[in-house]
Amino acid sequence: MPPRFSIANILVGPQGEEFLRGFIHRSYPKGSLISSGDIDENGILVVMSGRLRMFLISEDRELSLFYFGPGDMFCLHSGCLIEAAEPSELKFTDLATFDKKLRENPQIAWALISILGRALASFLRTIEDLMFHDIKQRIANYFIDHAHSSGRPSPSGVEVEIRLSVEDIAKSIGSSRQATSTAINSLIKDGLLVRQGRGVYAIPAIERLRSFR
Amino acid sequence: MPPRFSIANILVGPQGEEFLRGFIHRSYPKGSLISSGDIDENGILVVMSGRLRMFLISEDRELSLFYFGPGDMFCLHSGCLIEAAEPSELKFTDLATFDKKLRENPQIAWALISILGRALASFLRTIEDLMFHDIKQRIANYFIDHAHSSGRPSPSGVEVEIRLSVEDIAKSIGSSRQATSTAINSLIKDGLLVRQGRGVYAIPAIERLRSFR
Repeated sequence: MPPRFSIANILVGPQGEEFLRGFIHRSYPKGSLISSGDIDENGILVVMSGRLRMFLISEDRELSLFYFGPGDMFCLHSGCLIEAAEPSELKFTDLATFDKKLRENPQIAWALISILGRALASFLRTIEDLMFHDIKQRIANYFIDHAHSSGRPSPSGVEVEIRLSVEDIAKSIGSSRQATSTAINSLIKDGLLVRQGRGVYAIPAIERLRSFR
Repeated sequence: MPPRFSIANILVGPQGEEFLRGFIHRSYPKGSLISSGDIDENGILVVMSGRLRMFLISEDRELSLFYFGPGDMFCLHSGCLIEAAEPSELKFTDLATFDKKLRENPQIAWALISILGRALASFLRTIEDLMFHDIKQRIANYFIDHAHSSGRPSPSGVEVEIRLSVEDIAKSIGSSRQATSTAINSLIKDGLLVRQGRGVYAIPAIERLRSFR
């Protein structure tokens, strides 16, 4: 749904200069913490250059949620940590100023829709990973077994013809149709499987599918 | 960040009639499945009336991700299931038509930003629930213990004064400062705790905090 739209080129032009007037500029070396995600924090950041990582730390692991690049903007009070994955140049402003600037530059709205849509897709993949990790592993093994027994080389990778419905695959791996369908779609979104046609899949990189966490 | 904005009132006016011209109208009884979340599904839905639930089903549980109300719109290829939580009237169109209509009615972009922002916050709460469930329970117990030993009634609920930093709370429950901070913020976002001031919290409903999953 989000229109493909980047404001990276707008931001460096005269219109960007006007939009970013009054913003505070800060530089961050690689690895430095930009936001501790405190919900009391207030404001908006705009990435001028570099790459940011949004993440959460729980008791036993760290979870990357989303990466930002040039032209991306986000709020600081999301509750997530944000660090510089690369040396980064950022602009900051408060919410009220950002809201005003946004209304003066309505085309920036498309950029926001694009970022929010990308973040939403990325968050959903994280939820699927957390919920469906076990079954995704079993399906990965199921496809690897088929690739070894009956796979054929194809331009998209090893092609596997499974003459079974999702319901049949679900029975083979001992799960429900719905969970199996979601998990297969999730592997497709991860780029580990490609659906070529009805019951025909390609595995672009068997090693990547095997080492799937 | 998402500006508070609803297009529910625009959709029922003359502008809405123009915007929704060519959309397909469908009615759904309560409990009926609207989208199976197949990533091959294509299109946009707009809620005219009723309430929709977006959810995922894994092997051992069902997880509600987001609720839609009148004026909300979303894509069908998210990979999530969508059902009618109440009897609902919807409008459907394909992506290309929606994109065109959106460009003709740019103020609809604000509605999209608002929905995407709300969905993002809701998805993040789900991730926190999945990642931080154990530690949230321990913190809930910690606050309930304090409420029983030293709580005072206040207009916001039982007020608890913890003369300790987050770092000290983390040590008491045997966790890291960062995980404890995220988990406390998550309980605040859930409405189970209210931060009154430095080290002072209120518990609006002890029973709700106790029965926290």
